[in-house]
Amino acid sequence: MGVTATYLFPTHPEQRKIAEQHALGLTIGSWTDIQHLEQEQLKKHKGEVVSVEKGEVKDTIKIYYPAANFSADLPAIFTTVYGKLSFFEGYELIDLTFDGELLAQFPGPRFGVNGIREQLNVSDRPLLKAIFKGVMGRDLSFFSAQLEELLAGGIDLIKDDEILFENELTPFYKRITTAKEIINRHYEHTGQRALYAVNLSGRTNELHEKAERAAELGANALLFNVHAYGLDALQTLRENNNINLPIVAHSALSGVLAGQAGGGFSYSLLVGKLTRLVGGDFSLFPSPYGNVAISRSDALAINQTLTEENGFEKTFAVPSAGIHPGMVPQLLKDFGDNLVVNAGGGIFGHPDGPTSGAQAFRAAIEASVNNIPLTEAAKTSEPLKRAIDQWGTVVTS
Amino acid sequence: MGVTATYLFPTHPEQRKIAEQHALGLTIGSWTDIQHLEQEQLKKHKGEVVSVEKGEVKDTIKIYYPAANFSADLPAIFTTVYGKLSFFEGYELIDLTFDGELLAQFPGPRFGVNGIREQLNVSDRPLLKAIFKGVMGRDLSFFSAQLEELLAGGIDLIKDDEILFENELTPFYKRITTAKEIINRHYEHTGQRALYAVNLSGRTNELHEKAERAAELGANALLFNVHAYGLDALQTLRENNNINLPIVAHSALSGVLAGQAGGGFSYSLLVGKLTRLVGGDFSLFPSPYGNVAISRSDALAINQTLTEENGFEKTFAVPSAGIHPGMVPQLLKDFGDNLVVNAGGGIFGHPDGPTSGAQAFRAAIEASVNNIPLTEAAKTSEPLKRAIDQWGTVVTS
Repeated sequence: MGVTATYLFPTHPEQRKIAEQHALGLTIGSWTDIQHLEQEQLKKHKGEVVSVEKGEVKDTIKIYYPAANFSADLPAIFTTVYGKLSFFEGYELIDLTFDGELLAQFPGPRFGVNGIREQLNVSDRPLLKAIFKGVMGRDLSFFSAQLEELLAGGIDLIKDDEILFENELTPFYKRITTAKEIINRHYEHTGQRALYAVNLSGRTNELHEKAERAAELGANALLFNVHAYGLDALQTLRENNNINLPIVAHSALSGVLAGQAGGGFSYSLLVGKLTRLVGGDFSLFPSPYGNVAISRSDALAINQTLTEENGFEKTFAVPSAGIHPGMVPQLLKDFGDNLVVNAGGGIFGHPDGPTSGAQAFRAAIEASVNNIPLTEAAKTSEPLKRAIDQWGTVVTS
Repeated sequence: MGVTATYLFPTHPEQRKIAEQHALGLTIGSWTDIQHLEQEQLKKHKGEVVSVEKGEVKDTIKIYYPAANFSADLPAIFTTVYGKLSFFEGYELIDLTFDGELLAQFPGPRFGVNGIREQLNVSDRPLLKAIFKGVMGRDLSFFSAQLEELLAGGIDLIKDDEILFENELTPFYKRITTAKEIINRHYEHTGQRALYAVNLSGRTNELHEKAERAAELGANALLFNVHAYGLDALQTLRENNNINLPIVAHSALSGVLAGQAGGGFSYSLLVGKLTRLVGGDFSLFPSPYGNVAISRSDALAINQTLTEENGFEKTFAVPSAGIHPGMVPQLLKDFGDNLVVNAGGGIFGHPDGPTSGAQAFRAAIEASVNNIPLTEAAKTSEPLKRAIDQWGTVVTS
């Protein structure tokens, strides 16, 4: 039992020898110097090179690390497989494969795609999510008005801006109770549910207490800047049964870990596979369409690892930035139906305001699911028509 | 009051405009669209471009973020200043400067250079530190024998390998009590004290309980893979008065955050300044001399931020890898006297074993502090002579 790490190393004629040195150096240190009896004893701790595949610029190397060498937590696993190798120029960690028992240590999402769809009672279309805009420096009445406008437009979810932290004007607990009241009232009037992901932030050792209190006060989702705390911190939140809330894992800062030229993690491992394994119900990451962007192949690889069959609940992909109603068909084509359409500027920038902005998205989603061209759907939806006038449509390639 | 972030952005003719967009986008969103009355209200939340200095490849940009926008913790500060910008190609975060009150939120090292020197009763020379070797897969008798041999050679500190985690053969609490007994016996016989930094590892939410228990059992130092958990996790350990132990902050994984071409943190900020501010008594990082190496300028910049006067206790620099006794004069020249000479292979590779290996280092340190050439000192130290025969000396440049 153990973990197999897949790396890209800059290509080298003696790559296997290099990889073997790493496999030993990161486990038992040496092998040939060791006496036969000790070799027997150390065998179950010895790292192994599984494969070396030559490439033009980089070679693909798989190294197996026995689970006997580390505790079953990501800090130990990361330190083992990448603690030292991260210092080598151009070494990338692109995948981790966990053997059965080790894999079973991870919780996966508490709710996942199915659980969230059940909570929201929406089974047949992508969800629509909005981001509060300009709350910093404004008070709760501003926050409330915005929430009401967005709910009126038909959003399913809303989240705090990830840079909205504890503050005097819109305190964490007040945001929760205020939003709860508005969302409940909306449900009583319309029968439509909505989730509000409040930004769980602050010191590492206060997160659980704050999250538990949030749950008690009636929060129905959490936003979490997971890479500011580490994936294991998210896992502990997922595992705490006193919290019991869907978690939106935000990819802020992951550009440091995965986005830099030459080295680092792959996005699909960090923001995809591992975010799902530790328990993110949603994974929010830069879409390939906006001004804050990651590559299309990275975004699609994240989506694949969030949703492929692996025995865990599926995580909703939330590709973000640069999304307006005219892009919805492209989004669905790229990411499939189990998607959250997430918009900020694409809702608030609507010429008739955020309610119309959300309505335009709902109309675009409705049309796309039914394979109706947006220009056709716009004939019966004034908000969609106005959105398309403003932003146009993206021709699906 | 706030924080000023210094970045390198790829050079651009309209850099100031770009920087201003970021300063607004990462605080209040927009400015010119806002009415005069609201401008008054939002003024104290508005980010400001402090300076733009043009360079050939990259421009240096300073942006000021008001403290009103975030809680006084590194996860909030990182998310604000680099959460989104980390996704931009080639954006580096090279420094953070905290205004007085914000700076005062950080604890700094509990003991630092002075406190550690007092504990060890060593005021006049660099300290000597060893790393256990090959403990993985071996039992406590192996561990004990190694510790005794190293203490006999005169080491001041020893640490677990950072990839030694909780395991059946040498359990965490057993390592502590075993080492305590050996170190105490050594002190009774010789009057020499030593610190053993046991690797504090495991799940994020168990760290405090384990560290407190370690302290109760008589551990006298902790090793912590801080970048597997985040700097804030180290800060919480530093602030816990039930722990009260020196902390060796290990830089494992920081190559992902700081070592990749193009972007990321600077080493001096991450492994230097911030590791000191959150409370590392020692900061262990790759030396510029070994096979796992960072650049000389990065290593020296780390050392400078660990030891410059800033109102906090100083942190010991522990440059590691590739260090043998013949390098000690170079080390002192590069890093000054407030240094920990840290060796693994340079002690265990000594032809007469680890006791002689440690003795060779102590002789080299003694000589270097007194400006005696190593070849001269080797005349009265057989272990040093044998070490120099094996590895040679490095000519100080």
